[in-house]
Amino acid sequence: SLLRDLASQVHGAHVYSRPADCAAYAYDAFGASGDRGLPDAVVFPATTAEVVGVVSVCAHHNIAVIPRGAGTGYSGGAAAHRGGVVVCLTRMGQITGIEREGMRIRAEAGVITAAIHRAASRVGLFYPPDPGSATTSTIGGNVACNASGPHHLRYGSTADYVIGATAVLASGEVVRLGESGGGGDDLLALLIASEGTLGVVTDVILRLIPTPGARATLSASFADMARASDSLASIAAAGIVPAAIECMDRSALDAVSTSGFAEVPSDAGALILVEVEGDTETVNREAEAVRSALGKAGAFRIEHATSADDAAKMWRVRKAISAALASIVIGKVNEDVVVPRNRIAELVTRARDIGAGHDLPTVLFGHLGDGNLHVSFLIDPRRADDRARGHAAAAALFETVSDLGGSVSGEHGVGTSKLGAMERQLGRDGIEVMRRIKSALDPQGIMNPGVKLPEPVAVAASV
Amino acid sequence: SLLRDLASQVHGAHVYSRPADCAAYAYDAFGASGDRGLPDAVVFPATTAEVVGVVSVCAHHNIAVIPRGAGTGYSGGAAAHRGGVVVCLTRMGQITGIEREGMRIRAEAGVITAAIHRAASRVGLFYPPDPGSATTSTIGGNVACNASGPHHLRYGSTADYVIGATAVLASGEVVRLGESGGGGDDLLALLIASEGTLGVVTDVILRLIPTPGARATLSASFADMARASDSLASIAAAGIVPAAIECMDRSALDAVSTSGFAEVPSDAGALILVEVEGDTETVNREAEAVRSALGKAGAFRIEHATSADDAAKMWRVRKAISAALASIVIGKVNEDVVVPRNRIAELVTRARDIGAGHDLPTVLFGHLGDGNLHVSFLIDPRRADDRARGHAAAAALFETVSDLGGSVSGEHGVGTSKLGAMERQLGRDGIEVMRRIKSALDPQGIMNPGVKLPEPVAVAASV
Repeated sequence: SLLRDLASQVHGAHVYSRPADCAAYAYDAFGASGDRGLPDAVVFPATTAEVVGVVSVCAHHNIAVIPRGAGTGYSGGAAAHRGGVVVCLTRMGQITGIEREGMRIRAEAGVITAAIHRAASRVGLFYPPDPGSATTSTIGGNVACNASGPHHLRYGSTADYVIGATAVLASGEVVRLGESGGGGDDLLALLIASEGTLGVVTDVILRLIPTPGARATLSASFADMARASDSLASIAAAGIVPAAIECMDRSALDAVSTSGFAEVPSDAGALILVEVEGDTETVNREAEAVRSALGKAGAFRIEHATSADDAAKMWRVRKAISAALASIVIGKVNEDVVVPRNRIAELVTRARDIGAGHDLPTVLFGHLGDGNLHVSFLIDPRRADDRARGHAAAAALFETVSDLGGSVSGEHGVGTSKLGAMERQLGRDGIEVMRRIKSALDPQGIMNPGVKLPEPVAVAASV
Repeated sequence: SLLRDLASQVHGAHVYSRPADCAAYAYDAFGASGDRGLPDAVVFPATTAEVVGVVSVCAHHNIAVIPRGAGTGYSGGAAAHRGGVVVCLTRMGQITGIEREGMRIRAEAGVITAAIHRAASRVGLFYPPDPGSATTSTIGGNVACNASGPHHLRYGSTADYVIGATAVLASGEVVRLGESGGGGDDLLALLIASEGTLGVVTDVILRLIPTPGARATLSASFADMARASDSLASIAAAGIVPAAIECMDRSALDAVSTSGFAEVPSDAGALILVEVEGDTETVNREAEAVRSALGKAGAFRIEHATSADDAAKMWRVRKAISAALASIVIGKVNEDVVVPRNRIAELVTRARDIGAGHDLPTVLFGHLGDGNLHVSFLIDPRRADDRARGHAAAAALFETVSDLGGSVSGEHGVGTSKLGAMERQLGRDGIEVMRRIKSALDPQGIMNPGVKLPEPVAVAASV
């Protein structure tokens, strides 16, 4: 009956119900650590109206709605943990407008992030957020998780570019917010990063900016991460806000080296990449200032890319890390944390100690300039013992991050993987407030239940 | 009994109840158009704990809580339209921390915006939002209204800098969000711009950025606003994002001239100010590019400030407008609207036609680069007929703005002055959703009732 009702809203060819078909939609990138949930059905609506139809059917059957883009999330937000209907927006893949003079682009939720980059570039404009998954992830998923990437440092995250959105709420109501209809900027702010728990975003309007005329990329080798992170203060002292300051510790470099995906320096305890953007003269001057700041912080080798190819080669090291890890180990507990920039060195030491204490290899890399590090504890998820130690290490890491005045959700969202930490940070009152907001918008609790917001029962069990 | 209970929470000297004392807190800057509301009491808490006490007393007595900073708002958001207790946060005026390396500042809600600017500047950092009222307005009020100012174009608004906040909810719960306690970024996003309808923000953490090393200011005279607004496209084509592009039409220049507050060119139909910021070389180059773009758009005179004094003189014209209007007319209906940047010329023409049609002098100025114009219809608020024509003109303006794909709330908030427009833009479903969120956080409806969100009855009466 559910399937018949769904097929009445979306052509039957766009409704999957066989477990073999649904299995591919049972996990997101977090699935690597074993967190999966088989949906009862997967539907692929083509329009906002079809999304309304699907959500209404689910509300009628009181069954969960799990909005999904490309499933590149790292926090389990797109898995059907208790069954339900995955609403996959990949068929809504049209860029429906781009205004060069108005400097904005309108796109359906299923548009691939990289297609936004290309469309902007074709008219001489720039859409800065560049999550690592940009060639795969969808803009709807980026909005749902407030994705960012290496260039967050200068340009901010997805939320800084969303100026309008259309969303379908649990009631089947369609709201057109910001420049999509005018007003409701606070509701728009609430929907961004809501991970599908408050509604399904079906299309967005993004602001674009002028393309920077020039770019310089520098790569610097340090003895260790403590010295590498000192470069933050020396770059800031020079009054420069680079477009990106990325870092990798020796363990990440070793993983890349083992995978053979890119060449890495054999003598660096830590490597950082700094990119500056702007017009040619500014970039030249800032690159020199950055070089000097890196030297002051103790870099023993600094390379300055003199061509786009050289820069791409530098970035290849950084971008290869996730794939390298996937190629050499079966699983990882991949956590995404933020600490004040002057506590990074401490975080690095303590994260390594935690890994060692739980007998797990630990890999550290990330967005140094934002104080946003990805900490991966490597595990074999087929072994319950590994999983348990991985989760225990993650819990210890979260406590450390709290101690350091940081936060557990950098850019990967809360999903299901950070529910415990979420409550620890926000406090019981804060969670209660968020529950009230959730239930105001979704009284039946059908929108991506169990994600982002600890459920009363789950909390009792996990604390 | 209410007063006794309030005095038990806040020392009696900090509780006003005589109408003569309360009268000064009966209106904000919107009061110029006659919109006032006498509170039953005004309290001045000194700590978050005292705010909790006051809110709890009000909840117990089921009486409205009207949070207030300096009362510089233009939308009536701080007036006690149905009585209630004004919670004035001006005694909470401490900057409680500033971290040069961490690049952030922590301040109580009652800190004056300009004090944030100065504190940041003292450690070589920069807090960009610069509302016109910065020397008077409080940071809490800026957060409640998501204030911005001329430099919004490059630097965004208050929301782009708030990274943490402590808020007291209607229930008396205290939530510490973002870097104030970790997590709850979506709740933080919801509180920003909520105009006191969801809680009382008692302190904030703001991120700071490096101070730009240089600045150039250009002033250009045009025959009319249509040509002046053409400069937007030519500046964008040069790939430059100025820090500010401000405009004034002839009527605004005339007002400034009449007031004698600043010297203005007698032959300009419209004047625009462009400011670029960065390091010296970039600024020099961009200033030249801006000069050329202004020429292409048809500027018949371009002045380039060569000293900080010259720049201040140029800004004096722009900054004098509000005071000039106040000095030459008794009242104004001052609306704050945003349209796509390529519809500005059309907005200007139609706003003038609306003013003429309602027999009201019309003054136009604002943040051209953002498509954000302030449209003032001049009235004598002592005359009911003037007030009625002023409101009718505002209503017609809001419709025009909707037609042009714009929004009625640029930076001044919704308050009570834009409730009708709010509902027209957001739609009945959108308002209903916001009502649900409001009632989730404030089931008694005591937090700044009647502001921002049309109440069911008020809506029925106004539509």
